[in-house]
Amino acid sequence: MQAATAHEEIGAASDPAAALMACPREDRLAAFERLPPPIRETVLDALSEDDLLAFVHDLDPDEARSVLTDADETTRETVLDRLDTERAEKIDRLLSYDADSAGGLMNLDFVTVSADRPIDAITERVRRFESRTGRYPTIFVVEDGDILGALPNGTLAMAAPDDRARAYVEAVPSVRYDREDSDVLAVFRENRDRAVAVLDADGSVLGVIHAGDLLGVVEDVAGETLFEFTGVAEAENALDGPLVKVKSRYTWLIINLGTAFLAAAVVGLFETTIAQIAVLAAYMPVVAGMGGNAGTQAMAVTVRAISLGQVSLATGARVIRNEAVAGAINGAIIGALVAVIATAISSAQFGVLLGAVVGVSMVANLLIAGFFGALIPLVLDRVGQDPATSATIFITTATDVLGFLVFLGLAQTVLL
Amino acid sequence: MQAATAHEEIGAASDPAAALMACPREDRLAAFERLPPPIRETVLDALSEDDLLAFVHDLDPDEARSVLTDADETTRETVLDRLDTERAEKIDRLLSYDADSAGGLMNLDFVTVSADRPIDAITERVRRFESRTGRYPTIFVVEDGDILGALPNGTLAMAAPDDRARAYVEAVPSVRYDREDSDVLAVFRENRDRAVAVLDADGSVLGVIHAGDLLGVVEDVAGETLFEFTGVAEAENALDGPLVKVKSRYTWLIINLGTAFLAAAVVGLFETTIAQIAVLAAYMPVVAGMGGNAGTQAMAVTVRAISLGQVSLATGARVIRNEAVAGAINGAIIGALVAVIATAISSAQFGVLLGAVVGVSMVANLLIAGFFGALIPLVLDRVGQDPATSATIFITTATDVLGFLVFLGLAQTVLL
Repeated sequence: MQAATAHEEIGAASDPAAALMACPREDRLAAFERLPPPIRETVLDALSEDDLLAFVHDLDPDEARSVLTDADETTRETVLDRLDTERAEKIDRLLSYDADSAGGLMNLDFVTVSADRPIDAITERVRRFESRTGRYPTIFVVEDGDILGALPNGTLAMAAPDDRARAYVEAVPSVRYDREDSDVLAVFRENRDRAVAVLDADGSVLGVIHAGDLLGVVEDVAGETLFEFTGVAEAENALDGPLVKVKSRYTWLIINLGTAFLAAAVVGLFETTIAQIAVLAAYMPVVAGMGGNAGTQAMAVTVRAISLGQVSLATGARVIRNEAVAGAINGAIIGALVAVIATAISSAQFGVLLGAVVGVSMVANLLIAGFFGALIPLVLDRVGQDPATSATIFITTATDVLGFLVFLGLAQTVLL
Repeated sequence: MQAATAHEEIGAASDPAAALMACPREDRLAAFERLPPPIRETVLDALSEDDLLAFVHDLDPDEARSVLTDADETTRETVLDRLDTERAEKIDRLLSYDADSAGGLMNLDFVTVSADRPIDAITERVRRFESRTGRYPTIFVVEDGDILGALPNGTLAMAAPDDRARAYVEAVPSVRYDREDSDVLAVFRENRDRAVAVLDADGSVLGVIHAGDLLGVVEDVAGETLFEFTGVAEAENALDGPLVKVKSRYTWLIINLGTAFLAAAVVGLFETTIAQIAVLAAYMPVVAGMGGNAGTQAMAVTVRAISLGQVSLATGARVIRNEAVAGAINGAIIGALVAVIATAISSAQFGVLLGAVVGVSMVANLLIAGFFGALIPLVLDRVGQDPATSATIFITTATDVLGFLVFLGLAQTVLL
């Protein structure tokens, strides 16, 4: 937990670059990686060339990539120029892959050996790799340019020196370097404890990804869910300046403005009724708000089931039905509560009738919320859209527009 | 990707238990684990004792645990009784730990050796372990009952046969068996590619957790975020029946009802004004809705930064200020749009003035949304509450109550 304190101190320091360099060598990378992106950039800008070189110098190529990926192009090239050629080339190659792809996740801790190689020669090869890099490699076995698999842990210690790699090789999953990180995650879901080989277009091995490399991806995905859900651009960070925040969010707000005006238009239809019974305006946020809440609940449950592959539009009838029924039941509970309160506090003129209108509207709107809360994500998923991003808009539109329509329509019919 | 199809087929089958057993042996576990929990329980109930035994028989103890953890107690004991005693004891021990704790995550693929043990004796030990279990173990090194660390990958192949374990041991992180899974995750965040030792209260090694075991936890956390955010009970599944759904959600809806009534009370203060200018009711959902959207955006960004440890109440002044400023700017953009539209479509009686009131209210409400959207999660985090769960309530209350107050108050002052 030491680095946790370290990165917080660096983030709060008046000179974060100096604070990073004051950190013990072995904690620097972990502290740096946990800094918010805007502070990482500040640090990289502020570090002198010598300090940045000292920082990057001790790191493995994939670690150096994760630092330099945030640096501007000039800084990056100056540093690479001053490292020894072999390392600089490795880092440069890793930097060339999209950060959100298999290539961007992989490291270079692997050797490839041919299937007919004897175990003692492989051990020698691995020994050289380890003394050069300080890392123990994954041992991929290839034949005629195709990957056969990898040697399981412990093979070198267990096998006879003149056995061949072929006798021990076990298949490993592989992905192409340009596959998205979420695809890589899907591969790990099926093969928890293995390494995944990253292949070039011609089938040769470019790198290796371990489960630990994926933890960061899954955490990003976790954060992204809430971001998508609220329409915030993925790259935004809490410490960004106001203008970055505005840019990251205004599109979503404008889209929602459309929804809001649609709801407003429905209310506008009942202007005369509201002028006569102004208390209706007070209950409008109650009916619409509860519908919105219930709808996003149904949506959250459905979106999660879709993302875990547990349900699709084809198998979703049961989900939609259960959500609609659950909505109606919750509507009856909430509706009864609201009806009693409304009856108690409203003027003698409407009393019980107003309570009944609010209560019945609540049942209807929560049923609507459950139905659309389940249906819309399933449909969006079916047509290839991301259900987490766009579903809220449609669901809120449904609960607002239909909610106001039912409530004000019923009020006009019953109370006037 | 074969298992992905398999688990979907099982989930949709009329007899899911038979469909699971029809699945090839090696795909069964992966398919089972990806089924929604209610279907897993249905399958376990429907499987005959012999089939369940056949399913569990081929599995490692930690895999068997993950199957039997969903079975009822009687089934569980019947199956354990029919397995050989050593395996049954291991599975039983693993089942005794809380599923969300380090003990519930760990597996038993480890050996412990004393620091003075020579490499060739360790190799022999590992060979026996592997031939018995089919798995290569993590090799923990202990001295006087305390864990010193583990042997890095490849040590057995690289070291001389009469070297001692002590010469190669490297420290590994450890956690107590009763620590929560989120704590284990925090340990991995600092030590991406290592194994974590799980210790008993007396410091002896109980098991080992690898990064791959954590992927499921992180995915659960990801799903939970959206659940917390919308007030759905963590255990709810899309395929649950209506009554389970009602139970999982009604508390949240009732809490929100309180918020809604608070907003309604504010609107009630302006009943006379609304009776005179009923068109105000149409703009109410616009002002409140946009405030709610902007507030949850600010909240999503702040909650994510808190969960990544990037910001706390002590260091959050910059976040709150930036959010408030960003809110005001977005308010000006949206406000100008709304003002133009409101002026264009409203009756000649109010025209420009109504537009101005709506526009100014939008600026005020989005500033309020940004301010509270950042402040509230930081305060909740400071007082030890989960910001994702409770923040929305407070933020919606702030944007609804203050939003209506500003809008209707301004309208009453300017338009009457």
